[in-house]
Amino acid sequence: VRIFGDLNSGNCLKVKYTADHLGLRYDWTDVDITKGESRVAGFLAKSPMGQVPVVEFDDGRCLAQSNAIIRYLARGSSLLPDDAFTQAKIDEWLFWEQNSHEPSIATTRYHIVYLNRSLEEREAWRVARGEQALDLMERRLGEDEWFVGRTMSVADIALLAYTRLAHQGGFDLAARPRVRRWISRCERVLNLQPAS
Amino acid sequence: VRIFGDLNSGNCLKVKYTADHLGLRYDWTDVDITKGESRVAGFLAKSPMGQVPVVEFDDGRCLAQSNAIIRYLARGSSLLPDDAFTQAKIDEWLFWEQNSHEPSIATTRYHIVYLNRSLEEREAWRVARGEQALDLMERRLGEDEWFVGRTMSVADIALLAYTRLAHQGGFDLAARPRVRRWISRCERVLNLQPAS
Repeated sequence: VRIFGDLNSGNCLKVKYTADHLGLRYDWTDVDITKGESRVAGFLAKSPMGQVPVVEFDDGRCLAQSNAIIRYLARGSSLLPDDAFTQAKIDEWLFWEQNSHEPSIATTRYHIVYLNRSLEEREAWRVARGEQALDLMERRLGEDEWFVGRTMSVADIALLAYTRLAHQGGFDLAARPRVRRWISRCERVLNLQPAS
Repeated sequence: VRIFGDLNSGNCLKVKYTADHLGLRYDWTDVDITKGESRVAGFLAKSPMGQVPVVEFDDGRCLAQSNAIIRYLARGSSLLPDDAFTQAKIDEWLFWEQNSHEPSIATTRYHIVYLNRSLEEREAWRVARGEQALDLMERRLGEDEWFVGRTMSVADIALLAYTRLAHQGGFDLAARPRVRRWISRCERVLNLQPAS
């Protein structure tokens, strides 16, 4: 298995966290999206979407989209229980992450970390959506320790990647103690150092 | 089964198309998002995300997020073949739809149809992303008749919902003949009248 990705991208880190947690052996190929390396013909042959991460399996088949990848890799493990409805509730958070969390929290961070914009240049509507997403997570974690079920699932990993980097986009987790405790809980299970 | 939704919302129509195609019996409850009906306590108890569609099963369990719902309903049917890698390739398009297609094409249409903005007020960056998404679909449909596999899947249904309404957001499909033929193909299978 070969993973094509960028270690500054939360979407790519989701795949790394999952693969490492599952003990999967893989090779990693860095793709620099700031240099357009995901838009060249050789890469587009692997995924016409032109985005990282992409996983190439030993038989040559490729799979793109972070949440599709981690869901596929996690089959048969505790990260994706077999029960169909439990999987659907995990999917609920995976789709919410890509539609309501990533476009606000990750994109705001992208503008600052990749495009070197200042905090003052943040888009108000995007910040507001990010704050709403974090508030929803805080409420959800008032009920349970994990997003779905009684152990960590790929829903947690998908949400963790950009939430633990949210401060780099100017989001403040100080008033969200449950989210902070959940981040620590995930980091402990995944053997990660706290993000700076 | 009860579906809570808004018949002007492509995300809700995905669930209706899937349920109708599968011959599922259901009751439909209209939720007017412009009146905030998805944000009241009774609705938030069904889904804290505060969005439509939501499906409530006869045992009281609820499921939100359009693509999570159609994927769950389609289990065991030709809309979601059993093979794990085929499902992962379907997931690829489902996640792409929620991250790269819906936020550009559906949101641009939302501003016009729901918020009564004019075509001139469209956001240039959002329109550009929508055009890119439609271009990618046109390229993909140069290779095959359906997005994944040799028959219609939930990937097609997820992409169809807002693509067949894209003109309402000012997107022009005239130069995308494959997308137009694919829309007709889907409409034929789903027994839908062309959208006005």
